[in-house]
Amino acid sequence: MHRETTLESREIFRGRILRLTVDRVELEDGSVSSREIVHHHGGAAILPLDEAGRVTMVRQFRYAFGSELMEIPAGKLEAGEDPRAAAIRELEEECGLVADKVTELGCIYPSVGYDDEIIYLYLAEKLHRTAPRPDSGEFLTLETHSLEALRDMALAGALRDAKTVAAVLKTVMLRAAGQG
Amino acid sequence: MHRETTLESREIFRGRILRLTVDRVELEDGSVSSREIVHHHGGAAILPLDEAGRVTMVRQFRYAFGSELMEIPAGKLEAGEDPRAAAIRELEEECGLVADKVTELGCIYPSVGYDDEIIYLYLAEKLHRTAPRPDSGEFLTLETHSLEALRDMALAGALRDAKTVAAVLKTVMLRAAGQG
Repeated sequence: MHRETTLESREIFRGRILRLTVDRVELEDGSVSSREIVHHHGGAAILPLDEAGRVTMVRQFRYAFGSELMEIPAGKLEAGEDPRAAAIRELEEECGLVADKVTELGCIYPSVGYDDEIIYLYLAEKLHRTAPRPDSGEFLTLETHSLEALRDMALAGALRDAKTVAAVLKTVMLRAAGQG
Repeated sequence: MHRETTLESREIFRGRILRLTVDRVELEDGSVSSREIVHHHGGAAILPLDEAGRVTMVRQFRYAFGSELMEIPAGKLEAGEDPRAAAIRELEEECGLVADKVTELGCIYPSVGYDDEIIYLYLAEKLHRTAPRPDSGEFLTLETHSLEALRDMALAGALRDAKTVAAVLKTVMLRAAGQG
C-alpha cells in the first residue's frame, strides 16, 4: 500500500472558487517532497437527453482557454451541497429543463496529480421545458446535437471538456448495453 | 460569440508544477468580474493494450485524494515538450513497455472553469517489454486488467481518474467501430 504523510500544510491562497496549499510530505522511503494542491468544492454536470436522442448543450466562453467551449450543463457545488440537487438546479437555470428521470453516471476526478476536485455526472431524461434563468455574469448559448454526433465529436477529438466526454461516452455505452 | 477581456492579471503563486493568477476581466455586458486560474504545462497519458486485450495500469498514492488510484500511465509535460514523446517516455519509465504502434486519442481539458491544463491521450499497441525506471520519489504498482473489465469499472463508477475514463471508453468505442 503506497502512502504519503503530511508534515506541514501551508495555505497560499483562499479565493472565491479555489484554495491553494503547498504541503511538505514524507514519502514511503522516508524522503521529503512538496505537494502543490488545488482545493475545490467540486462540481455537478448533467446530460439532458430527449426522447428523440438529442442532447441540449451549453456553449460558453472559457477564460482559461480564451475561447468558447461546448459542454453539458454543469455548475460548482457550494460547500456541503448535494451534487444531484446541484445538477438538477443547473439544468433548470442554464437550459430551462426539468427532468422526470435522473440517473447517476458516477463521478470523475479531473486532475488527480494536484487537484482534489470531484465532478458528479448525471443523465437527465423525460424532459419538460421551463424558463432558463442564467446566473448574472453567465453568458451562454444553447445548442442541441444528437447523442451520436456528440459521440463522433468526442472520438474525433473535437469535444474536449473532460466531464462532457465522460458523460457522452458513458451514456452511449449504457444505452447500447440496455438495448443489447 | 461570447468573450471576456483581461483588464489585469496578478500572479499569486509560481510553483514547481503550477502557477496561479487572479485576473480582472470585463464580461460581454461590460460588467467586471474576477477569474482565479490555475496554469499548468499539461500532461500526456497512454493506454497500453496488448494482443490479448489486456491493459497495463498504474496504481499509486494520490495525495489530493488521500488514497491510491488506478490510472493509465501518464506524466506532466515540460514546457514546450511534445506530448507524444512524453507519453512514450512515461510508458517506458513507469511500465517498462515500448510500443511499435501509437495512436492519438485526442485530448481532454480536465477542468475548464479555472484550469488551463490539457491532457493528451494515446493508445499504445504492439508492445515489447523493457525495464521500468520510475522517477525517484515515484512509487507505483503495475496491474493488468482486460479492456472490458476497465470499461465495466468506468461505467460502474469505480474508475474515476478523468484521463483514464476517457482513454478507456474511447479505446473501447474505436475498437468496436473498427470491428463493426
